[in-house]
Parts: sequence; structure tokens; C-alpha cells
Amino acid sequence: MEESLRKIVPGGVCAPTGFQAHAVACGVKDPANPRLDMGLLYSELETTSAGVFTTNRVKAASVKVCQNHVKATNLKAFFVNSGNANACTGVAGVQHAKALCKASAKELGINMRQVGICSTGVIGLPLPAERMLPYIPSLTEGLHGSEGQADLFSQAILTSDTRKKEIAIEFQIEGQPVRIGACAKGAGMIMPSMATMLCFITTDLDIPNKEHLHKCLLEGTEQSFNRITIDGDTSTNDTVLIMANGASGVSIGERNSETCKLFRQALTFLMDHLAKEIVLDGEKVTKFVTLQVKNASSYLDAKKIAEAVANSPLVKSAWNGDDPNWGRVIHAVGYARARIQEALIDISWGKHLACQGGILGPASIAKLRAEASKKAFTVTIDLNLGTAEYTIYTSDLSPEYVDYNRSEYSYWKAVERTQNS
Amino acid sequence: MEESLRKIVPGGVCAPTGFQAHAVACGVKDPANPRLDMGLLYSELETTSAGVFTTNRVKAASVKVCQNHVKATNLKAFFVNSGNANACTGVAGVQHAKALCKASAKELGINMRQVGICSTGVIGLPLPAERMLPYIPSLTEGLHGSEGQADLFSQAILTSDTRKKEIAIEFQIEGQPVRIGACAKGAGMIMPSMATMLCFITTDLDIPNKEHLHKCLLEGTEQSFNRITIDGDTSTNDTVLIMANGASGVSIGERNSETCKLFRQALTFLMDHLAKEIVLDGEKVTKFVTLQVKNASSYLDAKKIAEAVANSPLVKSAWNGDDPNWGRVIHAVGYARARIQEALIDISWGKHLACQGGILGPASIAKLRAEASKKAFTVTIDLNLGTAEYTIYTSDLSPEYVDYNRSEYSYWKAVERTQNS
Repeated sequence: MEESLRKIVPGGVCAPTGFQAHAVACGVKDPANPRLDMGLLYSELETTSAGVFTTNRVKAASVKVCQNHVKATNLKAFFVNSGNANACTGVAGVQHAKALCKASAKELGINMRQVGICSTGVIGLPLPAERMLPYIPSLTEGLHGSEGQADLFSQAILTSDTRKKEIAIEFQIEGQPVRIGACAKGAGMIMPSMATMLCFITTDLDIPNKEHLHKCLLEGTEQSFNRITIDGDTSTNDTVLIMANGASGVSIGERNSETCKLFRQALTFLMDHLAKEIVLDGEKVTKFVTLQVKNASSYLDAKKIAEAVANSPLVKSAWNGDDPNWGRVIHAVGYARARIQEALIDISWGKHLACQGGILGPASIAKLRAEASKKAFTVTIDLNLGTAEYTIYTSDLSPEYVDYNRSEYSYWKAVERTQNS
Repeated sequence: MEESLRKIVPGGVCAPTGFQAHAVACGVKDPANPRLDMGLLYSELETTSAGVFTTNRVKAASVKVCQNHVKATNLKAFFVNSGNANACTGVAGVQHAKALCKASAKELGINMRQVGICSTGVIGLPLPAERMLPYIPSLTEGLHGSEGQADLFSQAILTSDTRKKEIAIEFQIEGQPVRIGACAKGAGMIMPSMATMLCFITTDLDIPNKEHLHKCLLEGTEQSFNRITIDGDTSTNDTVLIMANGASGVSIGERNSETCKLFRQALTFLMDHLAKEIVLDGEKVTKFVTLQVKNASSYLDAKKIAEAVANSPLVKSAWNGDDPNWGRVIHAVGYARARIQEALIDISWGKHLACQGGILGPASIAKLRAEASKKAFTVTIDLNLGTAEYTIYTSDLSPEYVDYNRSEYSYWKAVERTQNS
């Protein structure tokens, strides 16, 4: 979407008309030191809503309940907690998720199935619902459509993130201003696990067809969050939810209409922005790497290669060390099980050819190192075979990441916090 | 193989009768500070030989040449260099590999196709064959069948390994003593790349059928080295070679004979021993983890799950931190794309059930942490679905590993060494 066609506006998920948010600290993250960890996002009007969920075969109880609600009806509220993923919590976990939806719905005067629920945090510890339920009245009472409230909500969904990630844009459809707002949270590096990737989107557009909205959301996800999640489906909790409440009075047309095209472009712009923010705020990340695979035989081949390279600890360690180590890149290309011709492969850091025709390229090591030393750089793998391409946004792997995940963010510390409470 | 049926003997690859070895320092690793980096292993008698090679689609020039030689004839010599992988070196790399085989063969008075060649080290830099060729006469002249010479050879094949890995055993076949010797080198963690997994095996058994020997070697590899190489086929250079020279006068029978069974057991014992040694000497490894997947629906499902878990940076970081984080394990189980029933999954550290029926298990965190704090421990994932199982030997991921691979073992330092020479 052309920059001239949209402008960024304040207000995050509350930027579109008719959305209210609030968040409270109820001690799920740490009973001894409460921080914002429970949030609610509410649409005053009826909506059309859709969701995209993790494909992990181990799904959080909250995901299971949320999927059923999205399927059954259109949501009017998103309930989120951070600090506990409500994953691997069995029947009790499902009961807890339902109880939280029910309590929220009661306060809001809506059906419990109109509440979508998401959880993020430690896997495998019971969700302390008894600690959360008493806060629901104050959570709903505090709902308001201001910029500050959107900010509270976008803070409450964070776990190991160091900063909130939100954006809202305004653009014109048939001369009328319409808005989309969104916030997201990231995860351990770009491989969500202890943490989870969540994204919440609001719009005041009228999108009557639920199936259509779902397709747009899937398409946006494929262009954004699926390009940063290295394993595609790692987390037990990954969720993207959208509500369209029609408050702008502007309706989008059929799938291939001009208005729908504008909406899809705007949605993808927002999701792409947040996906990149997630990488930039990945755990102990020091590099933002755009990894392009070009001229592959097929889209799937390009994707396989991009994911194999972006997922290699050796490649990522080299990126951390400013090392233009194309040998590690090509070795990962080789084990991606995609069609390649070794003697046709070119690999560049920025414009500098490190590898040409499968062997040492003409670029000087000084130029390659200068490029590899930047905070953000592009690595291009040109297979010179076909016309398919795939781009992935990824990061380095740092000693600090391992250290963080071996100690700070450990399971037993979470257990200790629970037992001490 | 029962312990009582075999004994470990000194002499490594020279323990079986009729094998000679030598190694020299010719400055491939570091011209300024030469260390052993070129080795030769030779059979005085004609042999039956076989090889197993990497399935990476980017294959080192040395691998391509070696594969052709193994296919064409039976080898009488293994030539190895460390410090340069001769991978991604194009036509020149193939010419260099052939020149080295030819020069060695000339000195030995054999056909150049009777020389198998392996290289290990940095990918993508030209092999300095001009520096190596002058040393070939002294390499062949020094050949001798002593324990010390086997030791030199097992040292010369190392890269980031901290110690040599060799073993030889003697056992009886029909009352006659026979021997098998072997040495191996490991790699970055258990995901060979800059370095490579190589293994060289000698035996004085007579194994007339080449195809049969190849099958035994494949079977042994599947039971050993393929259970530690997390990505199965990562490196551009992985190679396992064997020569059987018949010097013991003992011949093994058909595939299902008693004598063949004994040989296969002995071979697997040796390869399993060396595979474990490779994990134990992995780069900056602090834990040896036996990961068992039990009661899967199929062998492939069990393998997929074992590899997904053993390959997860988050799981491995937790292992490094003595953290019995079963949530990270089950999340990797979930994305392995294998058949599972979440509510049937049990996960244990040693005998302690961390997760039972997909939720928090009965073991105390104190007991789990005590187990996870050991240098070696077993994690068992019981799917309670079928009868298939798979075991993998793996390690933790340490901050030191990333640090080592970001700096010490970098491409640009290798380039600098080359340019300064």
C-alpha cells in the first residue's frame, strides 16, 4: 500500500471507532510483584470476527476454547492473560478458560461465546484462575476507548518482550476515512515457545462476510507472522484475532473488489510491521536479517531453503559475530531437501557476492565484514534455477539468548514463584 | 554384543593386522603454526571396502571423488586432511582431490582409485593442495603399523574436537581372534558443519562380498552416527569408510550366519561408542542427554519427535541450565508433525514423571532439578499410543557454544589465516 494512501495515527487497538480496552495486574506473572497481566478489548457494536491459530498439535486450553468461540459466533471481546500459557493443563485448563470467558461475558452482558480468550507464558503450570476471576469486574468497569487504555492493553499481553508493539492507520475508502488498529507480542527469539506470538486487530470497517474476513486474515498471516516464525508452527498458543465493527459506516466489497484490495493491503501492512517489530524485540537479538531466496524452482523450495538457513544455530551464531560465513549458509541450503544446482548458487551480503556459482565469490572479506557488522542486513541466496522466491525476517542467535533461556526464564523459577504465592 | 565376548585392545585403526598409518603437519590448519592435518591409513593387503556418505545436496569435492573411488574399486588407503573441507570449491576442488589421491597412489604403487579421500574444516576456501602435495612422500614413507602411528592418524583428523576418539576390539569367531579398529572425529555440537563427522574403520576379517559389507556399514551408521546427527544429513562432508583385509584368515559368512551376526554386533558396538564420544566432545557441551521416545505409532513418528526435541534451541538451553522444563519438550513434540494424543503423553527426567497424561506430573521440582543437574541424564517421552521407539544421543546448547561459533571458529579468521600465509 502506497504511503501516500495511509497515515499512521495514535490509539493502537482503540484508534478505530467503538473499541474499548483495559488491563489490570492480578499476579499471574508474579504474585509478589504484580505487573499488568490481564487485558480486555471490547467492541460496543456487533462485529464480524475471525482468528488464525497455531498448527501445533499440542494446543493450549485457551486456544481450544477460543477456536470454538470463533467458530460458533462473532466475538465482541478479546480476553488475554500473560504469565501463564494455560497449555498442558488438561480438563482443568479448559474449565478455567471457560470460567474466565463466562465471568467477562456476564459483566459485559454478552454471551460467553462472544469472548475470545488467549493466554501466554509458562507452559504446564495450572492457570491460577482463582486469582484472576476476582479482578474481572474491575477489568470490565475500566473499559474505555482512549489511547491510554489501548496502551494498557498492549502492555498487559507482553512476556519476555522489552516493549509494546502497536500501530494504527487511517486510510480512505471511497472518500471515507476508515481505521485499523493492532497490537502484538513476541517471543523467545522468533521461535515462540515459553512465550507466544499473539496479535489483536480492530477495524471500524464493515466486513459482513465472516469467511471473507478469515481469508484476508490468513493471507496477511502468511505474508507476515509466518515469515518470522522459523518453525512455522512452534508455539502451543499462537493466535491472531480480528474484529470488524462497521462503526465507520464503510463496507468493503467482494473479494476482488477495489475496496477489498485496499483493506487487504492495509491489513498486510500492519501485520508485516508488527512481525518485524517482533523480530527486532526478540530475546537478546542484536541483528535483523532479511533473508531472500530468489529464482528457486518452486515457492515451496524457496520456503524450505529460507527456513533451513534461518533456523541453523551455526548460521545464526555467525550472524551474531559479524561473520559473513557463506559456507554455513550453503551447507544449510544443501540439507533443506529442495532442488538446487550447487554450481549455480550465488550468495550475497547486501550487494557483495560472497559466493558465486557455488564457490568463493569476488567480494573482498573487508566489504563482506562491513556489511555483516551492520545491525540490519540482507542475505540473498540466488539459486538461478527458476522464478520462485521467498523472504523471511530473522535474527541472530546470541550467547545472551542461551543464557537467558537457561536461567532467567526457566521453568523451575516459575514453579518457585507459584509455590511461594 | 556381550562384554564377555570382546575385549578392548590398544592400537586403534592399526590394531587389526596389516594396517599402517601416518600423519604430518603441512599447514592447512594454520600455516603460521603447523599442527597435524594430513593423515594416511594403508592396508598392505587387498581389501573389501565400503563407504557411507552425507546426503547433503551440497557435497564436498572430496566426497564426490571418494564416492566414485568406493564405487569403482576396493580401497587400499584412506587419505584425510583437516582444516579445509574442500567443499564449495568447484572444479578446482575436484582436481585437487584427484591430485592428492594420484600422488599418494604413486608413492604407494597402487591405482589412484584405490585411495579414498576425506576433508574436514572450513567450507568455501580453496584447498591449498600446493602446500599439501610436497608432504606426500614423507607421509607414505612414515607409514607403520604401530600404536603410536594410529594415534598420529587419529589426531590429524581432528578440527574443533578437544581429544582423539579411537577404539579397537578383539573377539573370537569360530575360536579365532579377530580385530576391528576405528577412529572418528566430531563436530560443532552434534550438527556437523564447519567441522564434519568422519569415521575410519579397519578389520582383519575377510569379508568377500562388498555389497554385504556396505549393508553392515549402513546398518551400523543408522544405529550410531545417525542417532547423534540431529539433522540427519547436515554436513557437506560426513563420511564413514571401512576396509576389511582378511589378514586374520577368518572369513565371515552370509548375511544371516552366526559369524556375520557377531561381526555386525561388534561393528555396531564400535560405532555406537564413537558416536557417543562425539557427543561428549561436542563444542562446549556440558550435558550428555539420552532422549528416548517410547510407544509411538510408528518408527518414523518416534524418530521425528526425537529429532524435533533434540534440535530445539529452547529445549537445549534449558538442559544447559539444569532446568527440567517439560513444557518446552512437549511443545516440540507438538510441532514434530507426528501422531500424538496430548492427554496420553508422559515425560520423565530419569525415573521422575515431570508430565503425566499431558499435564503436570507427580514428581517434585526438587527431584527433577536434581536429575537435570547431572552431567548425563535420560529424558523419556512416552506417547502411550503404539509400540515403536527411537533413542537419540544429544547435548545441551551453551552460551559458550554460540560464543565459540560467533568468533573463534569464524570464516573471516580462516580467510585471514589463508591470506597471511
